Amino acid sequence: MRRGGASPADVVWMEAALRLAMSAAVRGEVPVGALVVRDGKVIAQAHNEMVQRKDPTAHAEFLAIQRALETVGEDRLVDATLYVTLEPCAQCAGAIVLSKVGTVVFGAWDNRAGMAGSVHDLLRHPRLNHRPEVIPGVMEEECGEVLKQFFRARR
Amino acid sequence: MRRGGASPADVVWMEAALRLAMSAAVRGEVPVGALVVRDGKVIAQAHNEMVQRKDPTAHAEFLAIQRALETVGEDRLVDATLYVTLEPCAQCAGAIVLSKVGTVVFGAWDNRAGMAGSVHDLLRHPRLNHRPEVIPGVMEEECGEVLKQFFRARR
Repeated sequence: MRRGGASPADVVWMEAALRLAMSAAVRGEVPVGALVVRDGKVIAQAHNEMVQRKDPTAHAEFLAIQRALETVGEDRLVDATLYVTLEPCAQCAGAIVLSKVGTVVFGAWDNRAGMAGSVHDLLRHPRLNHRPEVIPGVMEEECGEVLKQFFRARR
Repeated sequence: MRRGGASPADVVWMEAALRLAMSAAVRGEVPVGALVVRDGKVIAQAHNEMVQRKDPTAHAEFLAIQRALETVGEDRLVDATLYVTLEPCAQCAGAIVLSKVGTVVFGAWDNRAGMAGSVHDLLRHPRLNHRPEVIPGVMEEECGEVLKQFFRARR
C-alpha cells in the first residue's frame, strides 16, 4: 500500500467515481462507479450495467478497464490508477492483474465478495505475476452508504 | 466434483473445445478453447482473442460465458456446463461464480494462475455465493500439450 494513504487528488477522483455510482442507482443498477486515470486525466469511466445488459459480469471497474485498454490501445495499464467505489470481486481483481493496472484505489470494503483482503487477497497474491499498489478505504463511509441506501430502498 | 469423473459426453465436448484452442493457435493466440453446453447443445463457444483484440481479459471461457448469457437472455447459467481446455484464472473463475455456471469441466491444470485449485480455489470457496460442480483434468494431457507446443515454437 502507498505510504501515507490517499492523496487529495485520490479523494477528488473517488468523488467522481461516487457520482458515477449514484447515476447507476438512478437506472436501478447497484451503485458502484469506477474510473481510470492516467497522467492526471480520466481515460475511462463506467458504472455497473448488470441490469441494463442482463449480464452479471458487467461490473463498473471491469467495464472501465476494458474501455481504458481500448483508449490506450495497449494491453496493459501499468501507468494508470483505477478508482472504484467498492472493493473488487474475484473477476475484477483478476482483470486488474491481467491488465497490470498500476494502482487500485477503492472505497468501501465488500465483506461478501471482496478480493482485496475481505474474502481473500488476489491483488497482492505472492504467486500471481502482477501486484498493483492498493489504497483501500478512500471515502469508505460515503461509498458504502450509497450501497446501503440503495438496498434499503429495495427491501 | 462429480462422482465418477468425466462422462463420454464430457470427452466429446472437450475435444470440440480443443479444436477451438487449435484454431486460436493458427491465429497466433495462446491456444485455449471453451464452449458452453445446455440440454446437449452448444449455446456458445470461443477461443482466446487477447492478441486480436489487444485485450488481456479476452480469455476463451470469459467470452464463451458472455456469449452464453446473451444466447439465453438470462443473467445466470445454472443449467449449463462450461468446457474449457485450461483451468480458469481469477477473472474467469470470478465470472463463473457471478453467472452461476452449473458445472465446469476443464482440461489442463494451470500452475501459474489457475484458480480451481492450483494457486487457490475460487470455484469452491466457502464464502462465495455460488459453487459450481467441477470436473478437472478431462483430456488433461492433450490440452496441455497444445499449449506446450505453442510456447515451444515461439521461443
